[in-house]
Amino acid sequence: MVLEVALIDVTDPDGFEAAYLGARDILASTEGCQSVRMTRGIESPNRFVLLVEWESVEAHEANFRQTERFTAWRAAIGPFFAGPPRVEHFTDVS
Amino acid sequence: MVLEVALIDVTDPDGFEAAYLGARDILASTEGCQSVRMTRGIESPNRFVLLVEWESVEAHEANFRQTERFTAWRAAIGPFFAGPPRVEHFTDVS
Repeated sequence: MVLEVALIDVTDPDGFEAAYLGARDILASTEGCQSVRMTRGIESPNRFVLLVEWESVEAHEANFRQTERFTAWRAAIGPFFAGPPRVEHFTDVS
Repeated sequence: MVLEVALIDVTDPDGFEAAYLGARDILASTEGCQSVRMTRGIESPNRFVLLVEWESVEAHEANFRQTERFTAWRAAIGPFFAGPPRVEHFTDVS
């Protein structure tokens, strides 16, 4: 299991939230996607952190980013981006 | 419930991990601290993301950051920091 952490700064947080909620299932129904959690900044209300648990980095790439799912997802939420999101993968320290 | 997200770049990831594991209970046993999860970057092995669920921002501040717990925590892990961590609080979008 790996954790995708995406830092997303947006121009219109309420518009972004609505677009995300409408598009969420495109991401959440992807094979290998185990959980999706979107959070909004308290100190920085235009900043969001998206946390997605994937079976593997390969599942994220092959089942989502290289497919039409990603095109549809980005078409929905991309218009609200203030800049390119910072997206990286992490593993648990235990 | 709020989620603390801390982005931590370090100079020595193995040293940082060991120091974190030794100091983890100082954080995890704090009143109002509901969960602690430390993750390490796959693409950026010197980058960590710490996710802490708190009862409230106030619990984080009053029960941890303004106490000797924070002094001890920072004394343990601070020597490995490559720069100041970026620490912010988030709430769930649902």
